[in-house]
Amino acid sequence: MNTYNYEALYKFTKSLLLKIGCPEADADTASKVLLSADLRGVDSHGVARLSGYIRLWEKGRINPTPNLKITYETPSTAVVDGDAGLGLIVAPFAMQVAIEKAKNVGTGWVSVKNSNHYGIAGYHSMMALEHDMIGISLTNASPLVSPTFSKERMLGTNPISVAIPADEQPPFVADMATTTAANGKLEILQRKDLDAPLGWVQDAHGTPTTDANGVKKGGALLPLGGDREHGSHKGYILGSIVDILSAVLSGANYGPWAPPFVAFLEPDPNPVGEGLGHFFGAMRVDAFRPAEEFKAHMDNWIARFRKAAPAPGFDKVLIPGDPERELEAERKVSGIPLIKAVEDDLMELGEKFGIKLDN
Amino acid sequence: MNTYNYEALYKFTKSLLLKIGCPEADADTASKVLLSADLRGVDSHGVARLSGYIRLWEKGRINPTPNLKITYETPSTAVVDGDAGLGLIVAPFAMQVAIEKAKNVGTGWVSVKNSNHYGIAGYHSMMALEHDMIGISLTNASPLVSPTFSKERMLGTNPISVAIPADEQPPFVADMATTTAANGKLEILQRKDLDAPLGWVQDAHGTPTTDANGVKKGGALLPLGGDREHGSHKGYILGSIVDILSAVLSGANYGPWAPPFVAFLEPDPNPVGEGLGHFFGAMRVDAFRPAEEFKAHMDNWIARFRKAAPAPGFDKVLIPGDPERELEAERKVSGIPLIKAVEDDLMELGEKFGIKLDN
Repeated sequence: MNTYNYEALYKFTKSLLLKIGCPEADADTASKVLLSADLRGVDSHGVARLSGYIRLWEKGRINPTPNLKITYETPSTAVVDGDAGLGLIVAPFAMQVAIEKAKNVGTGWVSVKNSNHYGIAGYHSMMALEHDMIGISLTNASPLVSPTFSKERMLGTNPISVAIPADEQPPFVADMATTTAANGKLEILQRKDLDAPLGWVQDAHGTPTTDANGVKKGGALLPLGGDREHGSHKGYILGSIVDILSAVLSGANYGPWAPPFVAFLEPDPNPVGEGLGHFFGAMRVDAFRPAEEFKAHMDNWIARFRKAAPAPGFDKVLIPGDPERELEAERKVSGIPLIKAVEDDLMELGEKFGIKLDN
Repeated sequence: MNTYNYEALYKFTKSLLLKIGCPEADADTASKVLLSADLRGVDSHGVARLSGYIRLWEKGRINPTPNLKITYETPSTAVVDGDAGLGLIVAPFAMQVAIEKAKNVGTGWVSVKNSNHYGIAGYHSMMALEHDMIGISLTNASPLVSPTFSKERMLGTNPISVAIPADEQPPFVADMATTTAANGKLEILQRKDLDAPLGWVQDAHGTPTTDANGVKKGGALLPLGGDREHGSHKGYILGSIVDILSAVLSGANYGPWAPPFVAFLEPDPNPVGEGLGHFFGAMRVDAFRPAEEFKAHMDNWIARFRKAAPAPGFDKVLIPGDPERELEAERKVSGIPLIKAVEDDLMELGEKFGIKLDN
């Protein structure tokens, strides 16, 4: 695996986005959002997806110069129309609207329609932290997940991200798919030709399988819990709530109508809304108690959980966000490793658009 | 098992709460909240808990005449001090505050401190439905759950309830513990002397066990997912978010400091806050799009998920809230079955306080 430094990948990504017609500021934002996934180890949502976005643009399904606007609002809420823009820029715009509303009335809640894939959920929730706000970021996604008792793909991996500020401790940053395992974890097993644990995937008939390629063969990812006995109805519930807040509330496509990310699949010819949906929240902590008090107690919360007695064979309890933050610090210095397939993909893009990728 | 009609159990519960000094209106509300659990089939949270509340009152840990008040607020937020009152009446008060704020600025968010066990989470979230609002209800609880990689009890079963209105379809009502299985499910297995599936419980050493009495023997409930490979870190994340929003945001006791429900265990002598915490949200759907539009799309969402192709061996996909609503309709007519242990418990309470329970 070759390793690329952040600056080189940033320059490459930004140049490419400029070539497809994105304005300077949008190309900058989108590159930062995309690369934050590579830095934080969510490799499936970083530059590995760049060619996917470009193919959607080639099909006319991504608008490089969207007119982002608020179409409906109250003091604490808004709906944003993404105008078919890159989710990578629609999401930070909408999160900023939530933050501004929170400054005014304590909290802000923004549902988004007519958007596309928005990169990692955690980038957007973390925007709230510097304002001493709790940030929330949800999105629906292409249907790959079956509800409990079903063999049909009805929901996306519909992630939930919540970022909570602390004082001396680093922030609490959760970013999780509502499935047992994210698609990226299956891709790792596929490359190594390994089986998946039971509870991750079912086959096209709706039968649990250990085949890591089960989804590609027409099966589905399973909701967090895996099966009914282990609480998969709760994963299905969580994925459904994300879908409804992101898409039914905004007027985007929900459930099985959510448009596919891959350009070779066409969106449903009879959509129930516009594009993909997201949902963002920002809550000022000092809308509940003085910020210093809250953050001191978050420090105490985090310190106490770090000290929780480990179970046999384990080292310590992790705080949500710890592994990603450590990896980010490391990759900023030593670079981002790219597997051969992603490297080839980027080289091909570079040739097509006349951009050189240095490492 | 003997069956009791709703009115008889309501009269008995209300009389008992009047005896301990609750005002008329509070005794009425608390009885309704408690019995909604029995009607909806969450038997562990209904009259089965009545003697537990009374024992807490006997210990002076429940204040029958609390002075509920807002101690901090912005246009969209508030903190409510429950004054050590019954959570069964503190929670509806706080949810009503959230609803009033939503009427004014689109959404309302209320964090509660100094409360006690609030019954079923779903009662409170469902209060939003008649206002065409989405209701959210969270609470922390006595520590019985270990984080991933730990053998220590650090979190409660910390439920999440979300209620979403529809038009012709019944509402979407989710109400779930953030553990693989709720404690009530273990109690059923204990009574039948059956094993629990792996992934529900670990023993006192932090080793997974099928012993349905594992928690009673010093073990812990496991977060939704069961083990790391099946995503238990996500259950731990969800339980943590519930804990932080309910208790760190309000100034209640969080994590392992959350006070025990059982009266024979004393609260931590060095608390980090006041009592137990809850968190409520209310979002006007017409703060995002016209209510008729939203509800028509919710009808479509629900109808489409009901029609999702079933997997082999299963009949149909369930919509969150379906089983509870069906049971409620049935039990309103044919009565609420009580197991012998609960019946005996109520009889003993009745004798002690001079109240007769008819069936």
